[in-house]
Formats: sequence, C-alpha cells, structure tokens
Amino acid sequence: MPTYEYLITDSATSTSNRDFHLTHDGIGIDSPVPFSIRQQTLAGGKQQGSELITLQVGDMTVRLVPTRGMAVLDVFVGDTRFGWDSPVQEVVNPAFINLEAFGGLGWLEGFNEMVVRCGYQWAGHPGIDNGELLTLHGRIQNTPASRVVLSIEDTPPYTIRLSGRVDEKCFKRCDFEVWMHLSLVPGEHRITLRDELINRGDYAREYQVIYHNNFGTPVLEAGGRVHLPVRQISPFNTYAGEGLNGWAEVGPPQRGFDEQVFNIHPLADPQGNTEALLHNASADLGVAMGFNTVQLPVLTIWKNTDTLQQGYVMGIEPGTSFAYNRRLQRDLGLVPSIGPGESRHFNLSFTFLNNATQVADALARIEGLQGDIRPEVLDTPLCAP
Amino acid sequence: MPTYEYLITDSATSTSNRDFHLTHDGIGIDSPVPFSIRQQTLAGGKQQGSELITLQVGDMTVRLVPTRGMAVLDVFVGDTRFGWDSPVQEVVNPAFINLEAFGGLGWLEGFNEMVVRCGYQWAGHPGIDNGELLTLHGRIQNTPASRVVLSIEDTPPYTIRLSGRVDEKCFKRCDFEVWMHLSLVPGEHRITLRDELINRGDYAREYQVIYHNNFGTPVLEAGGRVHLPVRQISPFNTYAGEGLNGWAEVGPPQRGFDEQVFNIHPLADPQGNTEALLHNASADLGVAMGFNTVQLPVLTIWKNTDTLQQGYVMGIEPGTSFAYNRRLQRDLGLVPSIGPGESRHFNLSFTFLNNATQVADALARIEGLQGDIRPEVLDTPLCAP
Amino acid sequence: MPTYEYLITDSATSTSNRDFHLTHDGIGIDSPVPFSIRQQTLAGGKQQGSELITLQVGDMTVRLVPTRGMAVLDVFVGDTRFGWDSPVQEVVNPAFINLEAFGGLGWLEGFNEMVVRCGYQWAGHPGIDNGELLTLHGRIQNTPASRVVLSIEDTPPYTIRLSGRVDEKCFKRCDFEVWMHLSLVPGEHRITLRDELINRGDYAREYQVIYHNNFGTPVLEAGGRVHLPVRQISPFNTYAGEGLNGWAEVGPPQRGFDEQVFNIHPLADPQGNTEALLHNASADLGVAMGFNTVQLPVLTIWKNTDTLQQGYVMGIEPGTSFAYNRRLQRDLGLVPSIGPGESRHFNLSFTFLNNATQVADALARIEGLQGDIRPEVLDTPLCAP
Repeated sequence: MPTYEYLITDSATSTSNRDFHLTHDGIGIDSPVPFSIRQQTLAGGKQQGSELITLQVGDMTVRLVPTRGMAVLDVFVGDTRFGWDSPVQEVVNPAFINLEAFGGLGWLEGFNEMVVRCGYQWAGHPGIDNGELLTLHGRIQNTPASRVVLSIEDTPPYTIRLSGRVDEKCFKRCDFEVWMHLSLVPGEHRITLRDELINRGDYAREYQVIYHNNFGTPVLEAGGRVHLPVRQISPFNTYAGEGLNGWAEVGPPQRGFDEQVFNIHPLADPQGNTEALLHNASADLGVAMGFNTVQLPVLTIWKNTDTLQQGYVMGIEPGTSFAYNRRLQRDLGLVPSIGPGESRHFNLSFTFLNNATQVADALARIEGLQGDIRPEVLDTPLCAP
Repeated sequence: MPTYEYLITDSATSTSNRDFHLTHDGIGIDSPVPFSIRQQTLAGGKQQGSELITLQVGDMTVRLVPTRGMAVLDVFVGDTRFGWDSPVQEVVNPAFINLEAFGGLGWLEGFNEMVVRCGYQWAGHPGIDNGELLTLHGRIQNTPASRVVLSIEDTPPYTIRLSGRVDEKCFKRCDFEVWMHLSLVPGEHRITLRDELINRGDYAREYQVIYHNNFGTPVLEAGGRVHLPVRQISPFNTYAGEGLNGWAEVGPPQRGFDEQVFNIHPLADPQGNTEALLHNASADLGVAMGFNTVQLPVLTIWKNTDTLQQGYVMGIEPGTSFAYNRRLQRDLGLVPSIGPGESRHFNLSFTFLNNATQVADALARIEGLQGDIRPEVLDTPLCAP
Repeated sequence: MPTYEYLITDSATSTSNRDFHLTHDGIGIDSPVPFSIRQQTLAGGKQQGSELITLQVGDMTVRLVPTRGMAVLDVFVGDTRFGWDSPVQEVVNPAFINLEAFGGLGWLEGFNEMVVRCGYQWAGHPGIDNGELLTLHGRIQNTPASRVVLSIEDTPPYTIRLSGRVDEKCFKRCDFEVWMHLSLVPGEHRITLRDELINRGDYAREYQVIYHNNFGTPVLEAGGRVHLPVRQISPFNTYAGEGLNGWAEVGPPQRGFDEQVFNIHPLADPQGNTEALLHNASADLGVAMGFNTVQLPVLTIWKNTDTLQQGYVMGIEPGTSFAYNRRLQRDLGLVPSIGPGESRHFNLSFTFLNNATQVADALARIEGLQGDIRPEVLDTPLCAP
C-alpha cells in the first residue's frame, strides 16, 4: 500500500536525522486525529546521546528508545501512564553500561522501560552456560538500532508504523537481525508489535526471547489482578512457591517483598492466539496483551510489588523461554534454534483499557479461552535456579 | 541568599549547555576579582565527549570534570599547579572505561585528577565480597553528572558555587544521589567541597567513600613532609611496614618505589574538625586540607613517590574507610550504612599556601591538635589485603 | 622536506576537525593524480560517533578508522576491493565494545577491517596470564586515536601521509604511545605502514604485536594461493594439523571449515626484508605484503575459508608473536620487552597487483628468498592452546 516513508537512522548510509520532526499537517494529511512524531537526542548523566522518539497521536503518546533496542519507554493515554517507575530515571546510553558488571547484572543499571526485549542469543538470569557467563537477559536491549524508518499510510485511518532494525552480530558467533515494527492506528488505544528475528548467518543458532512488559501504577495497585488462560503454572523458586495461591492478585507496595516469579504455560485458541490482562482494583483501567503461543509458548509473571521507590512493578512476559538461565532450559525444551536464513515472527498487541466495559470484555475473552480447563498447579519449581 | 543561578546540565529536562560561558562583566557583577566560568566539550582519543568546566577566579584556576563524577582535575594558583601528572593525560570519557578490566583495575585507565571520589556502594581495592567482584574504588568517578548548576551570590564577595549531582542507581541494588558542591570565594586561595550522599531508596545500604586527593610536583618534592594529628598509624601491608618510620617524609622520585600506604586514625578537635598539610622542602608552598572525623573518621596516606613519568604523587585521603577491599573492613567497623531517606554530609576544604607564614600557621594548628598525645604506632597491618 | 600539514584530531589541544575535507585543487597542488581526503563522523547503530577517513587518490581509495586504532578498513583499486566481509558491517565505536565479554572475546563484535593491529600489552587468544584475563588480541584496536595529522609533500610525487597516535596507557601498568603512519604515493597502488611503538614509561614492559591483515573475495578464491618464503611451519592446533599439507592453497567457501591456523617462521634477505603474496586462481590479482623479520619475526596464516556469510577470509599476519595466549609464548621466545624510552619500529607495505606480470614478479621475488632451502614442517603444534 502507498505510504509516506521517512528514514530517521541508517548505519548503512550513515544517516542520523537526530532532530526529526513531523506533523500530520506538515505532510498534508487531513487526519481527524492529529499526530506528530519527533526524535530528540537526550543529554545529561548517563543518557547523554540517547535518542528518544515520541509519537503523539490524538490523546495517546508513545515513547520509544532507538538507542536501547527500540524499547517502548512508556505509553500515555490521556494523563494515564502505562509503564513504571524504576530508580533508574535516565534513558541510559548503552555506552555507559557494562553488562558483565556485578556478575552479569549490569543490565539492571538501565532497566526502566515498559517493553524490554530480552534476547536473542539468550535471555534469562545470569549464569555460566557452555563455559561462558551469560549476562542477565542478553544484549539486545543495550544495542542501538541500526535503521529506523517511519511509515504512514496515505489513506485513512493513516496507520503509523515505526520500524527499527537492531543487529546482534558477532564474528564467528551470531548473525541476527531483528526488525521491530510498532504500529498504531490513530484513534485506537492500542499498539501492535510485529517483530522478526532473522538469522542471516549460515549456521543454526540457539535463540531465546522474552518480552519483559512492565507495568506499575496506576494500573498496578492493591486489589488489582492479572488474568490469563492457564494450562500449567509453577513457581520459579521456593520463595515464589509461598505466593503461588495468590499469584494473580496484586498486593500493595510491600517492604521486603522483592519479587515472586511464576512460570506459566498459557492456553490459547486453535491458532495459538491468547491474551493476558492486568487491571486495577476497580476494574476500570487495564492493559490487555495479545500474543501467540505458537510464537511465544510460555509466559512469566514477575510480581515485583516491593515499595514504590524500590520499583513497584509487575512483568507480564510472553517468551520462548522462562527466566531461568539458558543452561537450565534446554531440558525444558525452551531453547529453540533458528536455521540459516530463517525468520521467526513475534506479534504482540497492547490495548489500553480505560473503562469497566473494556476490562470486562477482555476478561470475558480470557475466561472463554480458559473454559472448563482446570489449570495444572505445580507446587515445586521446574528447576533449581 | 539571592544568587545568580545557571543550569548547565540536567538530565531531567535533557539540558546540556555544552558551550556555557560566563564572565563577571557579562552578568554585570562589579567584582574586584575578575572571574569567568566556562564549559567545553573535549575531543580526541578517549576524551571524546568529556566535559570540562574551568573556573578562572582572579589568579586561581579550578578545572572540574562533570563527565567524571565532578572530579577536580587540578587547581592553579598563579603558575603553580596543584594536581599531578599521570601517564593518563586525557580526561577519559567513562564510555571508554571498563571497570571490570584487569581483574577490576579498569579504573586506572582514567585516573589522573587531584580530587577523585571513591565510592559509594564501595571503595577500596578490588576483590570478591559477597560473591561479587568489587572493582577498584567503586563506580562514582566513572559516572557523568546528571545535573550541574552554577550559582553566584549577588553580593560581595560574590561566592561562586558549582554543584553537581551524580547518581549511583541500579534497579534492586542501589538508589544513591550524591550532590557535590564546590565553592570558592573570589580572592581566597581555597576551595570548599560540601558533598551530600542521599539514599533515595527504601532500604538501608552499606556505603563507603574515600576522597582520593592527589598531589605531585611542585608541592611534592624530596625534603617535603606531610603533617596531620595522629591517634594511630599502621602500615597497609608488609611493604609499607618497611617505610613506617619515615611515613611523613617525602622522598625523591625513586625507581621501583611503587607505593607505600598507611592507615591513620586522625585526631581532631571536639567537633571532629581536623587538618592535614603537605608542604614542599622549604616549607613555603603547601596545601592544607580540612575535614571532619565525624564524617570521615580515617585517612589513608598513599605515598607513590615512584619516578616522575610513572606517577610521582602522594594521596592524602580522608574517608569512611581505608583502602582495603570492603569485605575486610566490616570487622574494622569501617563499612557504615545509610538508612532509607537518610543523608550523609562530607565537607572538605583545600587551602593553597604559597608562603612560609601560611605553611607555619597550618603546621601550628596541626601541632595544637596533636598536643601531647603520642601517636600509637602499630607495626603490623590491620588486615592482610 | 617541506610539506603541507593538517591537524585533524588532537586530544592535547582538544581539536577535532570532524568534517575535515581537502582536495589537491583546493590546496593548489597541480598533481597529475587527483586526490581528496575527507573525514566523516558515522551514525547509526553501534557506529554512532565513529570517525572514518577516506583517501581518494587517483583510482585508489583507502579508508581508515581513527576511532578504531587507525585500522585500515579497506582499499579499493578501481572497483576491486581489498578487505573482507564480516557479519559485523558497522564501524563499531569502542564505546559499545566490552572486550571482557564472552570470556574475553568481545573484540569479535567489532572485527571487520583489512588491517587490524593486535597489541600492544599483549596479543593472541584470550586466557589467563599472571592471574589476569588477557582478552583477545589486546586493546589497541578499540582505542580512538589521540592525534591525527595529514601531511602532503609539496613537490612531486606529492606523497600523502596520514599519521595517527594511539595511546595504550594505564596508571601503574602501561605507558605506550604508538605512532601509525600510513603513506602512499599518488599513482602507485601501494600503501606503506611505518609504525613506532614508544615506551614512554620508566619501566621495561613486555609487548606483542600482530598485524592481522585480512583478505576476502575477490583476491581470495578457490584455486588461489598464498606464498611466502618459509623456514619452518607448524600447525596452531590439531585441527590445523589436518590441513597442514595444503596450508598454502585456498579452498572455496566451505561450510563447517571454521579456521585453520599455521605458525610460520619466514625466511628473509640478510636485512630481514621479506614478502608474502596472496593471489587469485588465475594469478592476475593479488596483494603483496612486505615486512621485516627483524621487526616481526613470525607470521600467522589464518585460513578462515568458511562460508561467505560467516566470513570467508584469510589473514596473513606478521607479528612479534603467534596467536597463542601470551603465557604460552614466553617459552617460545615470542614475548619481547621494550625498555624505558625505547622505540620499536614496524614497517609493512601492501602492494595491490592487478595483472599477471605483477603477480609473477612478486612470486619470483619470494622464490628467490626461498632458494634451495626446504621448509621445516613440524607436524605437531608448538604448544597446546
């Protein structure tokens, strides 16, 4: 379909349109929903040189970070922010990150976004696999995008798509290209991610991806709840086992809570399509996340309802894999591989719900997927992390 | 008090006034002591992108490095430079530093300033503590300032203050803000540091700080001497034990000397205020350093009087802690903690002395603090590094 | 001799002429061979901020990377490119490299140039030496040049020289300056490297250097061959032992070939001058590499004729040392040291041959150096890597 297309960044041609700015008016689109797209280069502290793209579309604002693997920093619907508050407030330039620090936890010095991709050579907790330290959640999030393109369809509803290509390449070891397409239809409170992992190399490689999708207040609050159709659930470790019964219930910010993590095999429709929902206490604010279990067969609930300042946040994380170190997941069948020239697609949608009807509709869809199937509840962790 | 205030850098608003420049004339201050403040962005080699602020106040020049944790690079009084000559000549951008290199000695690839703060999650020598490699002297010195503000009082003597905030933040691990205020009164040959460590997190954390204050020629020369009131002194290790008797005497640049390090518990007045002095051979050039033992109870003498090219330098280093790895200092009571929301203040002054009377006055103050108290001299190190 | 001289980069004066551009016309040189020299700052992905210098001289184009240790990215003679295709396509800014990653293999995330210097504190494979992890091939290649100067002689043939100084400095550990001079005579298809390692420190230091010179298609192709006068050859490891007989023959891109590495002690003329040649199947395209065995006594053949996408490349690598970890090479006498104030010179030339006569002439010179001497062939590796 015909589109307007704008090249914002491209390493092949050494293009960097650092002050890119565009409005629907400016390009002569007579859209009933006004929009603007703007890139800025951040400054100060460890965000010096980071790039931030802001899509302002009607009453919705989406902020992305090309410098940090096309992460979605946050989404505003009106005044309501979806995302979370990390003690890390800056958009940290990967130049200042050492993933190997703290025994492989350096990733935590930059972690503050709503959508963080973990991967692709590996994801999960740090640890030794094949004699090498795999650092927490892989390298992609600390990799600047090599190519960023904005596309706008020239016919109503003027769908907007921001595409980034992030390379995970290392001589002898890895030749991955990841295309990350975020699209949104002006007027809808939804963003859609269509990602494609391409193995450009001539050798099959193991890969993993986890979509570390994180939500804090206001959608996360005491009395709120997470829903998804569950085939099997198990605690990540002994401590999570203590919270297994209440895994879906959101508690208040709680000193010393730290994190409880749950491994879930979701149910889905025959095509693999399924959905997770997080809503607030009064069930009139929520986020519904659509994904596909053929692409992303498992899901991690990361319940980190510690104090507000420590990071009050829940992760709802579809993935190829759980959050264990890669060496522990081969036996679980959760370390897939990708052949030479092959692609893998990962599609997610985030729908932002701001009334009780929308929340109830999402809940009904999930209950429909659950049907009469009783979740299998395992009391013991799948493996010992 | 009313002041002129200028925001130079601020990550919260993504401000970076990279070519900031101001003169007393330019802002209409009728100061008898002319001054100018200028920021420049450095280029070339590993200093590409480092920022340097130069305060030129009368015959005194102070150079600070926001990009390197608000370090004081050096101070000139007239033509006399206080600071030292490291083989590392560039103002190294932390983007090019890997603290984990060389078993945790990567910090040495950027070390060349007069005032280097070590901290705040830890300071001291590299080594394993709690199963993790603590790299040499912590992370703060390789962290760019997130906020830099210049203030100038609008009444005589037009005191100038440069304030920087450097964050040491990591999800789950640390939520420190450090405000570093350097002030100087035009006409005086003194700089004052008033630092504040704030634990913004909800959990108590261990912390350490060492002010690694370093001086080379001309104030450091054979026949010179360091003075401070001593309650107890001990050698850092066996090699330092060999130099224990002459710990306060400055020798000439000496091939193969490497470094001798001494642990000192200083004496102070009832309020904890105390002073250290380094002067040259003829005792007509010196630097007097004021600090407070309630804030900074111990002091390390780092006598590195190796050859000029290798780095002929002495460190006079008040701190919460000695230079041992953190794991060795808990038993010494030198790993304090800071509760949620708490602050710790650290005040230091550096007075640059350029005649015999000033040196003699400082010496008299120190002798007054020592009084009749005989220093306790321990022949053996406090612990085995 | 009188020259035009242009300072492009200098950390001492904080000079960075990022958009430097010059033509023979522009400076009033009436050269029969037109030339231009241009610096650009690259953008996008991990090459954000990398500088690239392009020398366009007649039908020859030479691209250098000051940001990556003055590497020669590639050379074009007409449409023929000398260099190779790595999966790593960007000119990676060292700010995004962690040499310690993957057990010391982080260097591979930026490796894609024709001339890559390995050194100077160490070169060779990663491994522990003296209790420290030495990362693959040392640090110099991931160090931005501190000073870059362009010189052009003002008389015919208007020889062009681009000089870079790259520092390898670390307090207490290393005080190396490396001057890297690339020169070319307009009209000749040759570049000459004259490098000088200077130990500015007061202590003798071990050093190593390997010139990792890498060539892919079209000069590398099945049926091609490498030639040099050989005194002794041995396989790097058992796998290379399998290919020992055919070490000089170039095979086609071969899935699973990975790399075979051969250790060679070359023969030379009485002054130590010698030559290596790589040519294509029809022996009408080649590159002849001149070096001196007094300076660089050994040479590594790195036959990495894996698939095109994986990296089809051969390295012809004169050095002070083989590619083993430094700890294994002391017993081989291949870890030299450099005294305080001393210099070491390393001169190489690369002549690009584009007809059968030129190739035959180079081959004849090499056969002359070999004469009647039979290469000593060792079946077993010199040491166990």
